Amino acid sequence: MDPMDEFWMERALALAALGRWTTSPNPMVGAVVLDAHGQLVGEGFHRAAGQPHGEVLALQQAGARARGGTLYVTLEPCCHHGRTPPCTEAVLAAGCRRVVVAMADPDPRVAGGGLACLRQAGLTVVQGVGEARARALNQAFLYRVGHGRPWGVLKWAASVDGRIATTTGDSQWISGVPARQWVHQLRSQCDAVLVGAGTVRSDDPLLTSRGQRQPEPVRVVLSRRLQLPHQARLWNQTLARTMVFYGPDANPVAVTQLAQQGVECVAVEPCSPRTVLEHLAKRGCNKVLWECGPTLAAAAVREGCVQEVAAVQAPKLLGGLAASTPLGDLQITTMAQSLPLSKPRLERCGGDLIWRFHLDSPTATA
Amino acid sequence: MDPMDEFWMERALALAALGRWTTSPNPMVGAVVLDAHGQLVGEGFHRAAGQPHGEVLALQQAGARARGGTLYVTLEPCCHHGRTPPCTEAVLAAGCRRVVVAMADPDPRVAGGGLACLRQAGLTVVQGVGEARARALNQAFLYRVGHGRPWGVLKWAASVDGRIATTTGDSQWISGVPARQWVHQLRSQCDAVLVGAGTVRSDDPLLTSRGQRQPEPVRVVLSRRLQLPHQARLWNQTLARTMVFYGPDANPVAVTQLAQQGVECVAVEPCSPRTVLEHLAKRGCNKVLWECGPTLAAAAVREGCVQEVAAVQAPKLLGGLAASTPLGDLQITTMAQSLPLSKPRLERCGGDLIWRFHLDSPTATA
Repeated sequence: MDPMDEFWMERALALAALGRWTTSPNPMVGAVVLDAHGQLVGEGFHRAAGQPHGEVLALQQAGARARGGTLYVTLEPCCHHGRTPPCTEAVLAAGCRRVVVAMADPDPRVAGGGLACLRQAGLTVVQGVGEARARALNQAFLYRVGHGRPWGVLKWAASVDGRIATTTGDSQWISGVPARQWVHQLRSQCDAVLVGAGTVRSDDPLLTSRGQRQPEPVRVVLSRRLQLPHQARLWNQTLARTMVFYGPDANPVAVTQLAQQGVECVAVEPCSPRTVLEHLAKRGCNKVLWECGPTLAAAAVREGCVQEVAAVQAPKLLGGLAASTPLGDLQITTMAQSLPLSKPRLERCGGDLIWRFHLDSPTATA
Repeated sequence: MDPMDEFWMERALALAALGRWTTSPNPMVGAVVLDAHGQLVGEGFHRAAGQPHGEVLALQQAGARARGGTLYVTLEPCCHHGRTPPCTEAVLAAGCRRVVVAMADPDPRVAGGGLACLRQAGLTVVQGVGEARARALNQAFLYRVGHGRPWGVLKWAASVDGRIATTTGDSQWISGVPARQWVHQLRSQCDAVLVGAGTVRSDDPLLTSRGQRQPEPVRVVLSRRLQLPHQARLWNQTLARTMVFYGPDANPVAVTQLAQQGVECVAVEPCSPRTVLEHLAKRGCNKVLWECGPTLAAAAVREGCVQEVAAVQAPKLLGGLAASTPLGDLQITTMAQSLPLSKPRLERCGGDLIWRFHLDSPTATA
């Protein structure tokens, strides 16, 4: 391995990350091309589905100077005809002598085939440089491809004593302005934001990234029976799209009323976190944000639909036996059954604290 | 002011802090004596009630070299006969020319009288050097003298989702070994540790500092009706003393049974956090630790008996609508009524997080 491989792959990873808000459902991919003398002659990254792949853009920029040179790419070049031609063809046409990739493409249509094709053509292929960072970058994409469900983030905002509202349901606002802006930013990194009917009824939320992602993440409501308000900010489709998933015993009149307002209604059976996420994965959602109340949040956790927790904590006391808490029943009775959280990341945000974790799938069914 | 005053007062404050575990109910006091040439010739600090005051020890160490020199002391020297003779007499006898104090003694028997006496005798007196640090050091003592109640610290250990036990009451253990050791240390800085009858029944706690403070803090149980177990680790008086406060409708048989085991039983009316703390203040408690369940904790907060909150948070999820939370009802219905916490201090302890705050007295009655 060339001692400069790590350096150039780091640059390719930084390029890849520029697509953070737009590549979904595709992975982020960045590429760097060096000429035969080791000079940088091309850079590129994947912007959005249907647009050229990162390595193709980098090779286009390099032109004839790529001949005899090296291509660094964060993901294995594809070898199949998708919405764009195979990238391996572009690599061979450019005349690169060496290809360094961070990781194989988990897409079953590629899965090592791209690298095999390049090796057969006589190129030197190096795999695994910067692989851990490449995997972290595309964590949500890889999870969706591997599990058939998007990576789920559960976010709540609570007082230090663990209340998400007062006894009368007042929850605006627990956290300060900077923490609420942080949540808008978190939404901008997700493909969908999910709530239950209770949150629509009690909070009438907007659930947008305030323009930080275009198009805005899809706003998703899970409502078994569609007991939803006629008027709600979520039904206004100007700022962002809204989808409502409902169960078999929902009121058909409500379906019609929502559809008339432009809201997409989808029947699922059962109307559960898991079935809804499977549906969203097929729609190309890599990462979703649960911003729901305790009952739906607990169901999402129980069904293995939460991989990450973001707890916003505000320096105040609320108390109240009847006041809502972040999580409903998890069927835990002994301390040994508690769900351990890993990879803690702690951040101060204004006067608030944001504690983030990974949650390993708790149940055997996950 | 001499530019070295801050330096020597800092040293006197460091000496004072050495009495942290033993001076209660007295304040911590440290003293430094310089000779007429500015050389350090004496140091001392107050160890315990009935033992010499810090300035007396420092002057004794300095002996004749104190003549014409400077005394630095963190608290105004006393001018009255208590369990020891007035310190002002010792200062005058030693022949110091200059006295620098951090703050006046709030004891009404002193309250500036000591400084006035020294000024009258012709000494140069400087007041207020390092005052903020001196006040912080004796925060609990000053609070007790000012309010007639000890400084109250409320501590709990909860999961990230705000549960202090599972739905079946299992709470051993939420936090890890380092955080539990941190709690033992916290107890060692308090004069009493308070729980309610429910905690005795459900947890059978030991509530000691594991020998870090000798004698151990007094273990205090608030039990309106004395519905307490016959056997409990708290009734064993070998490791530490236990006091039980009870209300007028308590079972008199229980009083006899507890007294036979050496437990001090005290009738109070009402058996409320505030009356119990007033009693403990008269017993010389400067600082107490609330380690009780949500109902008593909420009563303590409502009655203005909590000045500081220490929230231990463990990286795990427990969930459970019926699972206990740190605080019962605070009669808060709107977010504007939430009790703001100030002076945040954040500490990692093993895998756990400890978030500490000050709580300004929430009610008009506080």
